[in-house]
Amino acid sequence: MGEITHVSPLAPEAFPDLPVIEGVSFAAVAAGVKYADRKDVMLAHLAPGTAVAGVFTRSATRSAAVLDCQEKIGHDSAAGAAIVVNAGNANAFTGKNGATATKAVTNAVAACLDVPEGRVFSSSTGVIGEPLPHDRITAKLEALKAQLDPTAIDQAAEAIRTTDTFAKGATRTIEVDGKAVKIAGVAKGSGMIAPDMATMLVYIFTDAAMQRADLQSLVSELNQSTFNAITVDSDTSTSDTLLVAATGGSGVEVTADSAPFKQALHDVMQELAHLVVRDGEGATKFVEVRVTGAASADDARIHAMAIANSPLVKTAVAGEDPNWGRVVMAIGKSGAAADRDLLSIRFGDILVAEQGWVSPTYKEEDGANYMTQQELLIHVDLGLGDAEDTVWTCDLTHGYITINADYRS
Amino acid sequence: MGEITHVSPLAPEAFPDLPVIEGVSFAAVAAGVKYADRKDVMLAHLAPGTAVAGVFTRSATRSAAVLDCQEKIGHDSAAGAAIVVNAGNANAFTGKNGATATKAVTNAVAACLDVPEGRVFSSSTGVIGEPLPHDRITAKLEALKAQLDPTAIDQAAEAIRTTDTFAKGATRTIEVDGKAVKIAGVAKGSGMIAPDMATMLVYIFTDAAMQRADLQSLVSELNQSTFNAITVDSDTSTSDTLLVAATGGSGVEVTADSAPFKQALHDVMQELAHLVVRDGEGATKFVEVRVTGAASADDARIHAMAIANSPLVKTAVAGEDPNWGRVVMAIGKSGAAADRDLLSIRFGDILVAEQGWVSPTYKEEDGANYMTQQELLIHVDLGLGDAEDTVWTCDLTHGYITINADYRS
Repeated sequence: MGEITHVSPLAPEAFPDLPVIEGVSFAAVAAGVKYADRKDVMLAHLAPGTAVAGVFTRSATRSAAVLDCQEKIGHDSAAGAAIVVNAGNANAFTGKNGATATKAVTNAVAACLDVPEGRVFSSSTGVIGEPLPHDRITAKLEALKAQLDPTAIDQAAEAIRTTDTFAKGATRTIEVDGKAVKIAGVAKGSGMIAPDMATMLVYIFTDAAMQRADLQSLVSELNQSTFNAITVDSDTSTSDTLLVAATGGSGVEVTADSAPFKQALHDVMQELAHLVVRDGEGATKFVEVRVTGAASADDARIHAMAIANSPLVKTAVAGEDPNWGRVVMAIGKSGAAADRDLLSIRFGDILVAEQGWVSPTYKEEDGANYMTQQELLIHVDLGLGDAEDTVWTCDLTHGYITINADYRS
Repeated sequence: MGEITHVSPLAPEAFPDLPVIEGVSFAAVAAGVKYADRKDVMLAHLAPGTAVAGVFTRSATRSAAVLDCQEKIGHDSAAGAAIVVNAGNANAFTGKNGATATKAVTNAVAACLDVPEGRVFSSSTGVIGEPLPHDRITAKLEALKAQLDPTAIDQAAEAIRTTDTFAKGATRTIEVDGKAVKIAGVAKGSGMIAPDMATMLVYIFTDAAMQRADLQSLVSELNQSTFNAITVDSDTSTSDTLLVAATGGSGVEVTADSAPFKQALHDVMQELAHLVVRDGEGATKFVEVRVTGAASADDARIHAMAIANSPLVKTAVAGEDPNWGRVVMAIGKSGAAADRDLLSIRFGDILVAEQGWVSPTYKEEDGANYMTQQELLIHVDLGLGDAEDTVWTCDLTHGYITINADYRS
């Protein structure tokens, strides 16, 4: 993998102040999995009673760690738990050795922290097809255990980076019956230099007390409008993982019906999802694609993703070209219901096209001026029904080609 | 649109010698539809008795000319016919004016050549959303008629270019019962500089005598393994059109069951399809993606297209990087059936991965050496069944970004 040479122009100014979540402690070390001289393994220790929910890549060639997590998620347990993540090696497409390596790590973590092996969730991110040097990870477990610290979540965010140009975190605190409930999350994804996969890994922690099944249904539902609603280049990792842990440390019981908690968790998930797009390979523009007036929710998503994934739309955005003809093309090819003469297209608030043609009020200079902004909205109303959806993407630039073609990974 | 500055490195050495097809004559003029100082309208006059078949874009926002052709195709008629094509303006997303402009052109051609309007097929390619200046085309019809010439098919190939870096033609001649049957075709598509859509237009002529329904079923069948099996960037034009005309001029009756004719027509269609890929925007590599051992033909196509359209695979090819991990990723994300431990991947004849891991015989230097070639084969065997499919694509380079982002269209 290449060196991280500069930070995405869409990065936030600083990593946020993340609060302590009672019941979780973190540690990170330099284990030399692949990188030298940087932290590349993170451990999170979760108190007994913590509920853990997860969502994973749907890839048919998913990694050994993902397969292991999928077997473990969905079981209730009052025991302690752990999350262990390494950067530098994805342990994907490593044949039968993949599962052996994952088990070596999770068994060692279970023994070290005295938690059931079935409650140790692992992720691996980095190069594909190389055997995971799991002994380098297990050799560091005692050191990790000795360093466990409730305030060290920022180190976890650093350790899981591969080619990310910045560490990603988000937090929200709500009040329920006069008591604070906190949520803090970290993510990696869509890094800048010579990645294999731009794998997305997300770990979110809350001190809410929650039933596992409730947490899982909430996470699965919110995932659809957050992490499943972003795309950088339409390619899907073999390792994408989202884990959410509710420790109960606040003493506040929350159910899947708690509107304020749902909103706060949604906001943390959406903010982390947007940060992944903002670190999209070569990205210079952050683009929201909003589709309204669709015949069904599925149609709205299909149209929005067709626009967000179209190389011709994404290069037009990169070129600051208000090329609405390419948006028409993307709608046309998506396969979902559309009527040329009923749809309208807006760039921000600017009505560009309607009634099957360019709008009589549209001036090309207005569109061109709008496209120079760093944050853009492409809004299509299909005029067919009431369904809508929103997805987020970035532009397709020379930077993407440089990252993925000019360097050998 | 920008200037055509250089020819694709994948272009053939010269435009082929296309034979006269008895029953068709051609003309091309500079009508100034958009370009100055170049031929931009072509007319083909088809003798009475010519059978015409067609296949068109499935876009929901297809152009006025495509909609008009679709209404007309599929009717038997012994009358004469015509094909009229303009470059420079796609007459797409031009509202109600689109149909009006198309009818103005086809009515004028019908009157000029004394053929039924229902037998005049038109295409338009170029910018989207601008009204077609149809009077510039109709003003040139008498001049076109005066120039009609059975040998002028090469001028037709030139006139339909928009941003193509070379004119495209292909031909085959077979012998049936001691008599020659000829096929000649021209195409445009996937041009080099600042296109809006990379629209593909294809016109093929044969002097075989054929029932229209037979010709249509043959063309529809062969289209699936030729023009529908190519992709440059996964985007679909609003104007893609394939028309095949059988004049009967050879006096040789051919049915849909004629194996030699089917093979020859397939070869012309495949050669033209490959030429379109060879003129792919920014292309430096011609890539065949072959999927065998699939559970079904649909699965084979889905996997092949997932690989061929993956930006990460295409940039790896551009970078001459034997990055088989990205091929695994594309198979995994496609949604079609795959088993990580049963599939194998070959670059050309080089076995790269099998049994869920890199092959013990594979040497990275062999893969790297292979990828330096201009023509590449990526072969995936899924190990699940007997179905297979092949598609063709090109790499994704800085040239693509330059063409589509750096120039305002």
